[in-house]
Amino acid sequence: MEQPTVYLLSCGDELLFGHTVDTNSAWLAEQCTLLGWRIVGHRTVGDVTPEIIAALIEAANRADAVIVTGGLGPTLDDRTRQALAHAMGVGLREDPEALAEIQAMFKRFNRPMAEANRVQALIPDGAERIVNPNGTAPGILATLQGAKVFCMPGVPREMREMFKQSALPVLKGTEGAAHEVMRRLHLCGRGESDIGSAIRHLMGERSNPEVGTAVAEAIVTVRLYAKGDSRAEAEKAAHKAETDIRKVLGNDIFGVDGETLAGNVVKLLKERGASLVTAESCTGGMLSSLIVDVPGASAVFRQGVTAYANQAKTALLGVPPETLEKYGAVSRETVSAMAEGLLRRGGFDRQAYCLATTGVAGPDGGSPEKPVGTVWIACSRLDANGEGLTRSMRHNSVADRRAIRGRASNTALDLLRRTIMRHQSNYPVEESHWKRD
Amino acid sequence: MEQPTVYLLSCGDELLFGHTVDTNSAWLAEQCTLLGWRIVGHRTVGDVTPEIIAALIEAANRADAVIVTGGLGPTLDDRTRQALAHAMGVGLREDPEALAEIQAMFKRFNRPMAEANRVQALIPDGAERIVNPNGTAPGILATLQGAKVFCMPGVPREMREMFKQSALPVLKGTEGAAHEVMRRLHLCGRGESDIGSAIRHLMGERSNPEVGTAVAEAIVTVRLYAKGDSRAEAEKAAHKAETDIRKVLGNDIFGVDGETLAGNVVKLLKERGASLVTAESCTGGMLSSLIVDVPGASAVFRQGVTAYANQAKTALLGVPPETLEKYGAVSRETVSAMAEGLLRRGGFDRQAYCLATTGVAGPDGGSPEKPVGTVWIACSRLDANGEGLTRSMRHNSVADRRAIRGRASNTALDLLRRTIMRHQSNYPVEESHWKRD
Repeated sequence: MEQPTVYLLSCGDELLFGHTVDTNSAWLAEQCTLLGWRIVGHRTVGDVTPEIIAALIEAANRADAVIVTGGLGPTLDDRTRQALAHAMGVGLREDPEALAEIQAMFKRFNRPMAEANRVQALIPDGAERIVNPNGTAPGILATLQGAKVFCMPGVPREMREMFKQSALPVLKGTEGAAHEVMRRLHLCGRGESDIGSAIRHLMGERSNPEVGTAVAEAIVTVRLYAKGDSRAEAEKAAHKAETDIRKVLGNDIFGVDGETLAGNVVKLLKERGASLVTAESCTGGMLSSLIVDVPGASAVFRQGVTAYANQAKTALLGVPPETLEKYGAVSRETVSAMAEGLLRRGGFDRQAYCLATTGVAGPDGGSPEKPVGTVWIACSRLDANGEGLTRSMRHNSVADRRAIRGRASNTALDLLRRTIMRHQSNYPVEESHWKRD
Repeated sequence: MEQPTVYLLSCGDELLFGHTVDTNSAWLAEQCTLLGWRIVGHRTVGDVTPEIIAALIEAANRADAVIVTGGLGPTLDDRTRQALAHAMGVGLREDPEALAEIQAMFKRFNRPMAEANRVQALIPDGAERIVNPNGTAPGILATLQGAKVFCMPGVPREMREMFKQSALPVLKGTEGAAHEVMRRLHLCGRGESDIGSAIRHLMGERSNPEVGTAVAEAIVTVRLYAKGDSRAEAEKAAHKAETDIRKVLGNDIFGVDGETLAGNVVKLLKERGASLVTAESCTGGMLSSLIVDVPGASAVFRQGVTAYANQAKTALLGVPPETLEKYGAVSRETVSAMAEGLLRRGGFDRQAYCLATTGVAGPDGGSPEKPVGTVWIACSRLDANGEGLTRSMRHNSVADRRAIRGRASNTALDLLRRTIMRHQSNYPVEESHWKRD
């Protein structure tokens, strides 16, 4: 039984010319892979009807299913529905239910419906409308040269919901879908090549499971992709490889399958009834934003301070001006004073942690001793009895402003995780004890 | 004279299976388009040598240049250099200069070089090494079936620098490169279909310039893509269309060609010698992070407070507990009190602005009157003479937690921009005056 194949087609000049990054293909590829379908290709075409028609026909010839995203919007440069009708050799009809849905959607937002939105109710003859619970553009399900063609909006949120409700059930039941299991292990605080060397004995080409690594914002992901004649077999292979990897990487692994470092930290703090505050300089709120991004973060996260100016470090965090003068804003002494200062201020009735960052994000402001990319990070803990512990470290990265801030934010979260878990860090970390007066 | 063509090939299981989003193709597509090259395709292949070989050969047949990203790393799943050598029918040799560069790079970070990194010095016979100023993996420039093949690392920062230094000069000089000009106009505070209707008379298929729209995080981008027999002609066509669009959209446009809203706001505040602080709840530092992301933000940005818990809103921002009780944390009264409260505290010697946000980011916490996606935004200005002005508005969006926070952050920055520029907002905005006691 042949493994069914799927081809991903992204439509839009904004993608072809690179104004917009295509995030849909990655998401769809992962979904289809997990459903046991084989991805035969990703392709991007612009808003030119003949090119969309040609791409649709090529895709339909190469795969059992084609997933098209984009080009269903209300503006004149949205041409997917016309192209599909042409490729099918049929005309477009206005679908009354689709029109009713679009009108209802505008009512929900109580906005008047622009006349332009009416075209979104057009569907090729013989095709079905796919309901869009989250937007105005309905999707289209058609058959082209024996291939199932799903047309969905380019807006990721609308596309994802539509995929789950309409495409997934169709793809899931398909005969011949392989038994494949994917597993991702996430780490922070070690380099990718370092990790690659540590597990190279598991990374042979065409091994089962296939093992690969990727890195983003200081987080390394080790990927297992296991195949088997049955799901149980695939899971067994994945489990064995995960066990082998955990033997080597152990406590460096903070989460699996997309779990975020912030999500992990929020969970650990919740379990311990501890609370968290942040005192940021160069990361400028990015750290607190990562934490607040976790649903339910309010259970542990109290407040964050971005003390960008030195004056603010003193006024909001009680950093002594002498410390700033003597050691500079980017120093172990200052970052420790920031973390301890905020803990000294807040009236905490229970164990509380503070993460602090201060560094040189660039492009200017670097010096030989403190080049651009130098970030000092502190994690301080204040126990209910007034005992304080501060762990501080220096992190260096060669990157642009945003990446330096992103890597520092994740490294800070990892320092907090290791402090809570009492795990060793791979960086030299200095510990100091203090008391709340 | 045929317009030269380029094919973009992204290598990596992490891309094919969708673990990582391919941002390189978008960036490269834009660069090549601006150099007058025609993009014939984007394609993604996994870490399987025969598939990379086949894709390289197909790409070399279809285009004058092939830009390959990824698969040059130190781990065993990096297979681009082997695949290229095979496609060329040659062997791999260790390039001594490449090896020296890799060793020097590790010295720079003073880390020991993992033995694994040695493979990064391998280059196909007859190919040239491309220097990598920002990482360990050198690039490769080869010729395959008459097509120029550039292999570059997948790490965006390394790839971009390498492209600018090595590929761009080669592509730039090419005969037949079309004369094309791209222009992007960025807006916030209006819906995409609304804007599409307003300029639909300019959006005909195959018109010159071609005009399209795209939206991300509440920012709508109108794209002009103009062709001409000469560069001057293309620029003339783009300029005319831009003028027509500005006639219709006027003050809604905040920037062009990738300028960010935060960057625009920082510039406006600098020009006026004004300073900025932020008081965030649901955006949780995302707003201050967008501002700090602007190089030189320190000239205007003083401090940011994320008052996530109600208690913090009172303690850090002086929001009266009665206000929180009577109107709730998500209300015009609370968001105004947050903005004014922070301005009342900070000793500002000159005009200062405060942006405040409070809302329901979900997934829980919604109610019929305040559904998930409801965010109250305030922009308050305190003049040197103690006169205060607060402008507040409600923003609703149907999206996930991160998108709700991102849209609210951009909408807040746009409210600040319109307040500084004294421009009308498309949202109902309420104004109130206050005095610093």
